[in-house]
Amino acid sequence: MTNITRPSGRQPDELRQITIERNYTAHAEGSVLISCGNTKVLCTASVETRIPHFLKGKGQGWITAEYGMLPRSTGSRMNREAARGKQSGRTQEIQRLIGRSLRAAVDLNKLGENSITLDCDVIQADGGTRTAAITGAYVALCDAVQYMIDKKILTTSPITRQIASVSVGIFEGNAVLDLDYPEDSNAHTDMNVIMDEQGNYIEVQGTAEGAPFTPDEMQSMLALAGKGIRELMDHQNSALEG
Amino acid sequence: MTNITRPSGRQPDELRQITIERNYTAHAEGSVLISCGNTKVLCTASVETRIPHFLKGKGQGWITAEYGMLPRSTGSRMNREAARGKQSGRTQEIQRLIGRSLRAAVDLNKLGENSITLDCDVIQADGGTRTAAITGAYVALCDAVQYMIDKKILTTSPITRQIASVSVGIFEGNAVLDLDYPEDSNAHTDMNVIMDEQGNYIEVQGTAEGAPFTPDEMQSMLALAGKGIRELMDHQNSALEG
Amino acid sequence: MTNITRPSGRQPDELRQITIERNYTAHAEGSVLISCGNTKVLCTASVETRIPHFLKGKGQGWITAEYGMLPRSTGSRMNREAARGKQSGRTQEIQRLIGRSLRAAVDLNKLGENSITLDCDVIQADGGTRTAAITGAYVALCDAVQYMIDKKILTTSPITRQIASVSVGIFEGNAVLDLDYPEDSNAHTDMNVIMDEQGNYIEVQGTAEGAPFTPDEMQSMLALAGKGIRELMDHQNSALEG
Amino acid sequence: MTNITRPSGRQPDELRQITIERNYTAHAEGSVLISCGNTKVLCTASVETRIPHFLKGKGQGWITAEYGMLPRSTGSRMNREAARGKQSGRTQEIQRLIGRSLRAAVDLNKLGENSITLDCDVIQADGGTRTAAITGAYVALCDAVQYMIDKKILTTSPITRQIASVSVGIFEGNAVLDLDYPEDSNAHTDMNVIMDEQGNYIEVQGTAEGAPFTPDEMQSMLALAGKGIRELMDHQNSALEG
Amino acid sequence: MTNITRPSGRQPDELRQITIERNYTAHAEGSVLISCGNTKVLCTASVETRIPHFLKGKGQGWITAEYGMLPRSTGSRMNREAARGKQSGRTQEIQRLIGRSLRAAVDLNKLGENSITLDCDVIQADGGTRTAAITGAYVALCDAVQYMIDKKILTTSPITRQIASVSVGIFEGNAVLDLDYPEDSNAHTDMNVIMDEQGNYIEVQGTAEGAPFTPDEMQSMLALAGKGIRELMDHQNSALEG
Amino acid sequence: MTNITRPSGRQPDELRQITIERNYTAHAEGSVLISCGNTKVLCTASVETRIPHFLKGKGQGWITAEYGMLPRSTGSRMNREAARGKQSGRTQEIQRLIGRSLRAAVDLNKLGENSITLDCDVIQADGGTRTAAITGAYVALCDAVQYMIDKKILTTSPITRQIASVSVGIFEGNAVLDLDYPEDSNAHTDMNVIMDEQGNYIEVQGTAEGAPFTPDEMQSMLALAGKGIRELMDHQNSALEG
Repeated sequence: MTNITRPSGRQPDELRQITIERNYTAHAEGSVLISCGNTKVLCTASVETRIPHFLKGKGQGWITAEYGMLPRSTGSRMNREAARGKQSGRTQEIQRLIGRSLRAAVDLNKLGENSITLDCDVIQADGGTRTAAITGAYVALCDAVQYMIDKKILTTSPITRQIASVSVGIFEGNAVLDLDYPEDSNAHTDMNVIMDEQGNYIEVQGTAEGAPFTPDEMQSMLALAGKGIRELMDHQNSALEG
Repeated sequence: MTNITRPSGRQPDELRQITIERNYTAHAEGSVLISCGNTKVLCTASVETRIPHFLKGKGQGWITAEYGMLPRSTGSRMNREAARGKQSGRTQEIQRLIGRSLRAAVDLNKLGENSITLDCDVIQADGGTRTAAITGAYVALCDAVQYMIDKKILTTSPITRQIASVSVGIFEGNAVLDLDYPEDSNAHTDMNVIMDEQGNYIEVQGTAEGAPFTPDEMQSMLALAGKGIRELMDHQNSALEG
Repeated sequence: MTNITRPSGRQPDELRQITIERNYTAHAEGSVLISCGNTKVLCTASVETRIPHFLKGKGQGWITAEYGMLPRSTGSRMNREAARGKQSGRTQEIQRLIGRSLRAAVDLNKLGENSITLDCDVIQADGGTRTAAITGAYVALCDAVQYMIDKKILTTSPITRQIASVSVGIFEGNAVLDLDYPEDSNAHTDMNVIMDEQGNYIEVQGTAEGAPFTPDEMQSMLALAGKGIRELMDHQNSALEG
Repeated sequence: MTNITRPSGRQPDELRQITIERNYTAHAEGSVLISCGNTKVLCTASVETRIPHFLKGKGQGWITAEYGMLPRSTGSRMNREAARGKQSGRTQEIQRLIGRSLRAAVDLNKLGENSITLDCDVIQADGGTRTAAITGAYVALCDAVQYMIDKKILTTSPITRQIASVSVGIFEGNAVLDLDYPEDSNAHTDMNVIMDEQGNYIEVQGTAEGAPFTPDEMQSMLALAGKGIRELMDHQNSALEG
Repeated sequence: MTNITRPSGRQPDELRQITIERNYTAHAEGSVLISCGNTKVLCTASVETRIPHFLKGKGQGWITAEYGMLPRSTGSRMNREAARGKQSGRTQEIQRLIGRSLRAAVDLNKLGENSITLDCDVIQADGGTRTAAITGAYVALCDAVQYMIDKKILTTSPITRQIASVSVGIFEGNAVLDLDYPEDSNAHTDMNVIMDEQGNYIEVQGTAEGAPFTPDEMQSMLALAGKGIRELMDHQNSALEG
Repeated sequence: MTNITRPSGRQPDELRQITIERNYTAHAEGSVLISCGNTKVLCTASVETRIPHFLKGKGQGWITAEYGMLPRSTGSRMNREAARGKQSGRTQEIQRLIGRSLRAAVDLNKLGENSITLDCDVIQADGGTRTAAITGAYVALCDAVQYMIDKKILTTSPITRQIASVSVGIFEGNAVLDLDYPEDSNAHTDMNVIMDEQGNYIEVQGTAEGAPFTPDEMQSMLALAGKGIRELMDHQNSALEG
C-alpha cells in the first residue's frame, strides 16, 4: 500500500473512532447510538407481536427498517421529507438495504408471528451513514431479541449470524477504509460491504464515480472491507457484553 | 393550594428537572438539546441568507419552524410521517405555533433579508414537547443570531424579547405546573402558555378535556404558568452565559 | 372603556348582526346557515349509524368536523384545496378545533355507536369564520340529535351543555368584541373563546400579533367574550325555538 | 310523444323551475346562484389581470373552471375531496367540460392578458349539476366581463356567443328533458348538450347506461335539448336584464 | 362529399390501415396490439377471480380499464405520470370512457364474481388513441373470456354485443373519418363514437374546437362514424377468426 | 464447473437469446427494443436542448433515466404506478441505477447544455429487466448522440466508453449467467454487474437471498459476468453496425 495522505490523517486501513452506546433512549426495546467519527446514527428496534398483512398465515415473522436524516444533520439544511410529502429515492434505497441486511441475520421462521422495526435516524452526518446504521441496528436488534426472550415472547434467539457493514473506496488512486464525507465526495469509487462473522458476503454495492474501477482495485477494496468489518464486530461484541 | 399527590411526586408548582445543552450537534448555527424531565427535544437553528418568495422586496427576514417526532420517541412506535407522505394535523399545528412564537421574539425588519429555520425534533417524549421545543428553540435562535453577528451578516441583534413556554393543567381538581405524560393524559384541562420576560402573553392555548374549566381555574393556571416561565428563563439565561 | 372608533362603527362590546337559518339545504339531518355580519357559514350535520374503526367495541359514538372555504368566499380568490391536493395547516387546525369543541358538548357514551359529521363551509368570509362555524354547528347538531330521536336511533339527547364561540381582540389599544376582517387584520391580539352556558371555558386560544398582551388585556378580553357568548346563546335558543 | 309519467309529474319536454340570482355573494366579480328545481349551484367568476405560465407572450387571455360539491349536497354524505387529497375523475371531467364550454363562448385574443376562473360549487344536488353549472357560469362570466369594462380593463366584450346547457335522456323508453336525480339514476341514456344561441353545438356527450340508444332516440334527444336550451337562454337573458 | 385534400391523402371516408395482432405478449389472458396507421396501442386483458369491494355480495362481475402513454410515444417527450405522482384529468377521462364502453358490451351478471382489467398502453401516438384502445380492448376481452371458458371459470360468454370506436371530425369544412394527429390538431370539431354491431350508440362525445358545429355537420359525422365502425368490426372479426 | 441442470436447459455460462432492434418506434431520437429471452424492454432516448435547473451555468449536460413496467408485463397483474400515485422503492432504485450507469459512459462536459432522457419500459418480464434496460439504453443513447451530431447539436460524440450489464447468481450451488425469472426467484444470490469494454467495473450489486455468498462464489460470479458482458457488447456492436 502506497503512502497517501487522507484528509483525516488516518492510515488507509484505519477505521474512524467507533463508539456504540446502548439504551440511548428510554422507550424502544433496543436503542443504540452509534458514532463512527462524526457520523452519529440513532438506531431503535421496536417489537410488535403482529405481522404485516402479506405474511398472514405463513407462521413467520418480519424485520423491516426505516431511515431518515434530521434536516440539519448535514452541512447545509436539507428539506424535511415529511414536509415534502415523500421520501427520496436515496432514502428508500437505503432503508431497503438496511432491512434486507438485517433479515439476512435472522431466521424469520424462528421469530414467530412478530415484527421488529429498525428505525435508523441520522443525528449528525459525516459520510458512511448507511453502513453505520446497519452496524448499529444489529446491536439494537440483539437487545430487542433479548427483550423478547425476557418477556417470554421467544424461547430462543432467531439470530443466525452476526452482521456489520463498512464502506471502502478508491481515494487518490488507493483503496481506503471507512470513508468520511470529505473523502467520499472526492472518491472515484465508493463500495458498501455487508458481511457476516465468517467472512461471507451479505451484500456488496460498488459504484464508480467517474472512472470505472479495475478488478485489482475491486480485490483491494474487498480485502480492506473484511478487515474493517472484523474490527467493527469486536466493537459490537464489546458493547453487547458491556 | 391543597395537598395532592402528582404521579411524579412533584409539588403542584414544581417544574421537572431542566437541562439545556448548547452545541449538541456540529453543523447547525444553533443546536440545543433541551431536557424537561424525560422529554428531550433537539432544537437546531439554520441560517440562510435568502428569504421565501412571498417576502421578496419587503426588506425583511423570516423565521419559520418545523417539528417532528422520531418514530420511537414514544411508548409505542408511531408511523414515520415521511413514509406516510404527510404531516399530521397535530404536527402542523405545533410547528405553526413554534414559528409564530419565535417570530414574536424578533424584529423581522432588523433581521435583513435572511431566514432562520428552527427544527425541533423530539428524541424522547414524556409530555410537553411543544413547550420544551419553544423554550429550547429560543436558545438556538440566540446562538444563530450571534453567529450572524460574528459573520457580519448582522450588526446588531434583532431579538426584541426573551420567550419561554410551559404547560399547566387541572389534575385531580388542582392546578399543576409542567405536566408530564401520565399527568397530561389524565388532566381535565391542558393549557400551553408562552410569555415574555415582562410577564406578558405571546400565546395562550387552553383546552378542556372532558369538563370545562372555570374562570377561577383559569386564573390559577395563569399564575402557575407565570412562575414556571420565570424559572425557565433563568435556565435559558444560565445556558446562554455558560 | 375608552371611546374608540371601530371601522364598523360598532361599540367595543357590540356583536355584529347575527342570523341563524335552519333547514338551509334539503339533504342533511341538520343544516344551518349562520351569518355574523358579512361572514356566512353553512353548517351541516350528517348522521351515520356507524363509528370509525378506532372506536370499534368501545360502545360510544363520535363527532367530527370538517372545514372549508369556497375559493371565492374571500376578497381575492384562494386556491381550491381539493385541487392543490391537501388541506392547509390552517384548515386542519380549525377543523380540529371545531370537532373538539362540539365533542365537549356531548356525552359520547350516550350517543351510542353513531357518528355525526359537522361540515362547516364558508360561503362568504369577513373575519371570525371559525367562531361562527362553532356557534352554527351547535344548532345543526341539535337538529341532527332531534332527527335521531325522531327516528328512534336515540331515546334521549346526549347533549350535555350548550356551547358557542366568539372572537375578541385588542384593537387600537382597546378590547373589542367580535372582530370583522378589517379589525382582525389590524388587531394586536386575536383570541377565540368557546364557552358553555354556565360561563365555563371549553377552549381559549389567544395569539399576540406583534406586541404581547398584558394580563389586564387578557382579563378585559375574557369579560367581553363572556358577554358576547351569552348573547350568541340567546340567538341559538331563538333559532331552535323558531 | 307517448304519454309517460315522469317521477316529477313534468311533461317530457318540460324544464324544472329555473331561477338565476345574480350578486349572490359579495366578493366575486360575478356571483350567480342557479337553481334548476332542487339542484342549486353557486357559480362565481374571479378576474385576475395575469395569465398562466403556458400562455406567456401569446397576447391572449384564459378562462378556466373548477367544480366541487359540498360534502352534504347529496343524499348521503360524500367524502370531502380536499381531505381525500385528490379530485375524483368525475370532478376533473366535469371541470374540464365547464372550462372548455366557456372558452368556446369567448374570443381569448380579445380578453387580453387576463384570466377568469369560474368556480362552480354545488350547494344542493338533484341531478344535472354540470349542465346547471355551465348555464349559471355563463351569467357569472357576463357579469365579470362587465366589471372588466367598468374598470377599464377591457374596452369591449370578448364574448362571442351565448351558451347554455341541458341534459336529455331516455326514460322508460321515451326521450325526456332535464333529468332530475330519480330520473337520471333510472335512465337508459343520459346526454348532456351545450349549444349556442344559433342552435349550433358546442359539445354533445351521450352515454348509454345499459342498452345502447338508437339513431332515432338520438334525434329525439337532440330536438328536446334544442328546445330546452332556448328556454334556458331566455332565463339567462331575463336575469342579465334584471 | 366535396373534393378535399387530407394531409394523409386519404379519402374523407377512408380509415387508416388497421392491423390487429393477438397474443402480442405472453402473460396476459388477452393481449392485442392494434395499429391504426401510426397509432399503436397495446391492450391487455387480465382476469382475476375476485371482485372489488363495492360489489361484494351482489353476485356480479366487473370490468375496468386503465390507460397510459409511454413517455416517448409522442413527438415531444411527456412527463411520466408515475413520476409526477398522479394521472392527468385527460388520462382519467379516457380510462373512464374505455371502462364504461367495455362494460356496455358485457352482461356483468353472467360474468360471475370475476374481474377483467383492460390495460391500454399507447406505444406510439398519432391521434385517435382512445378509439383505437376501445376497438383493440374488445378483442382482448374476447380472448380473456375464451380463456375463462377454457379454464371452466365460465360456461358461456357474457359478451352481449360487439363494440368498436372511431373518431370523426370537421376538417377544412368537411366531415372526415378517423383523424390522425395532423388532422386532429387542426380540426374544428372532434367526435368520438362508440357503436355496437346493430348500429346503435354506446357513447357519442363531440367537442367543438373553435367554431360550434351545425346540426348538418353532426349528421354527416354520425354517418361517417357508422361506416367506419362497420369496417373496424370486420377487422375485429378477421382477427378473432385468425 | 459442475454439471447442473438449469430450468432453461442452458449451460451455466450461457446467455439467453439476445436481439436488439433499433428504430422500434417513430418519434424518439433513439428507440430500441431489446429482448433477452422472454424479457423485452423498450428503451427510448429523448434529446432536449436544455438542462435541469440544478446544472444551470455549469456548462455541462445531463443524462437521466426512468423505468416502468406495463401492468401486465408480469405473470400476475401489478398495480399501475401512475394510478397508485407513486413509484415504488424498487422502481426508483432501478432508474437511479440506469441513469448512473449511462452517465458513466459519457463525458457530460462534452454533451453541452443538452439533456438525454432514457425511458426503459418493460413490455414483458422474465427476469433481468434492469440489466437488459442498461444494455439496450446504451444503444438508444448511441442513436440519440448520432442524431445530435447529424443535427449539428454536437460536433463530436461525448460517449467515452461502451457499457453493458448482465446478472449472475448462485443457483443450486453453482454460479450461473443471465438468470431468468424461474432461476432468479430460486437463486441464493443475485448480482448485477455493469462493465465497460476494457473489463472494468461501473457498478457491482450483489445481494444474498438466504445464505451469504463466499469469496470464492464472488470470484466465480465476477468471471461469468465478464464473459457475458463481452458477448452482450458484440450484440450491441452488431446492432449499431446493422
